[in-house]
Amino acid sequence: MKTEGRNAVGELLKTNKTIDKLMIEKGAQGSLSVIFAEARKKNIRVQFVDRQVLDKESETRRHQGVIAFTTDYEYFDLEDIIENKKNPENGFVVLCDGIEDVHNLGSILRVAECAGADGVVIPKSGSASVTESVIRISAGAAEHIKVAKVPNLNQAVEKLQANGYWVYALEAGGEDIYKENFKGNIALVVGGEDSGVKRLTKEKSDKILSIPLQGKVNSLNASVALGIAAYEVVRNRLGR
Amino acid sequence: MKTEGRNAVGELLKTNKTIDKLMIEKGAQGSLSVIFAEARKKNIRVQFVDRQVLDKESETRRHQGVIAFTTDYEYFDLEDIIENKKNPENGFVVLCDGIEDVHNLGSILRVAECAGADGVVIPKSGSASVTESVIRISAGAAEHIKVAKVPNLNQAVEKLQANGYWVYALEAGGEDIYKENFKGNIALVVGGEDSGVKRLTKEKSDKILSIPLQGKVNSLNASVALGIAAYEVVRNRLGR
Repeated sequence: MKTEGRNAVGELLKTNKTIDKLMIEKGAQGSLSVIFAEARKKNIRVQFVDRQVLDKESETRRHQGVIAFTTDYEYFDLEDIIENKKNPENGFVVLCDGIEDVHNLGSILRVAECAGADGVVIPKSGSASVTESVIRISAGAAEHIKVAKVPNLNQAVEKLQANGYWVYALEAGGEDIYKENFKGNIALVVGGEDSGVKRLTKEKSDKILSIPLQGKVNSLNASVALGIAAYEVVRNRLGR
Repeated sequence: MKTEGRNAVGELLKTNKTIDKLMIEKGAQGSLSVIFAEARKKNIRVQFVDRQVLDKESETRRHQGVIAFTTDYEYFDLEDIIENKKNPENGFVVLCDGIEDVHNLGSILRVAECAGADGVVIPKSGSASVTESVIRISAGAAEHIKVAKVPNLNQAVEKLQANGYWVYALEAGGEDIYKENFKGNIALVVGGEDSGVKRLTKEKSDKILSIPLQGKVNSLNASVALGIAAYEVVRNRLGR
């Protein structure tokens, strides 16, 4: 969806809506530079483009040098994910701890959906949001899986635990994932490419699980690691 | 590595070396347009750039309007992969059937290395090569795993079978992957994002294996699917 014009974009920036990017006319001054400063503060991607590009993108023909691209994706509440399990006995939630890359988040939504998870939890800050790119990369999975955006991931861990979930952090140096029993309500926490699962999140988790690496590279890509772990849950629950 | 100048690049184009991309000066004529035509025929990415960009990239200061960027990656022979198994009883090869996306190939090398595979086989045409991007995306795995580039993937399947390998194609509609025993020499064939494993390759394979999808999306990303399957091999062989 596009929002055009200085006032409309200025108002949009005051809301909590997910803005994928802003296009601002090159050489922006005055109220446009205020909009730019606000966008930078909120970590929104800004493209400086020629007026002709804005003219071409504009649907209203009154862009006044700025167009915001937003996503219509509607987030769910964590409560909804907890209360409406696919299988009442075997809840399955995926938590993303600092997944900043849109490719990784899109792939994570795809694998979580394929593995039959009830939902995916992302934190409000330090995480990619469900943008048009993420929806595209998820190969449609974003339309079929619930995503909750929470103010604080550790509080989400606590809420899950209070609701009877066993929370596993996927990280090196933990227990062998192949020795675990995944019956009951469980949550898997997957960390970002560089930082992994954060220290505090690991401490809050009930157990750290590791995928045994057989080579010299010391980690798997986040979405691949989640794929292996989530399908170990599937295998376990299918009784294979 | 950079190759500069019209003759040197022309000669390079006659070899089988992997060229990541060509930079050609904008408004190219004469022998430069011959080089461009040759590059297009070989599906090499061409960037048309201003002279200043070439001046900046040039190491010899005699680029004559063209610079080729090549990768030093040295491929292995399939024979080498077959003869030098990590575990003499349990060979493990990954075959890529039409993986055109560099992200997917990089991720596949990474997960193959992490799962302890002996090597990865890619076909000469219709596949991404091991470029600098692929090496970067593989997170270093490309340095630790053998990659063989073969003229024909189906002949590679036959060669593996003649050497006692059991070849599995990963595709929808096959047998449950969790019921398989992966002891002995095995190979996993993973297909491209859109086309999957090709018909002829599937026919040549000894068995088609499927990962049970629990949601509405009808496929997993190639590298994630390989991750799940390759780790099922790992789990099986670890006796878990």
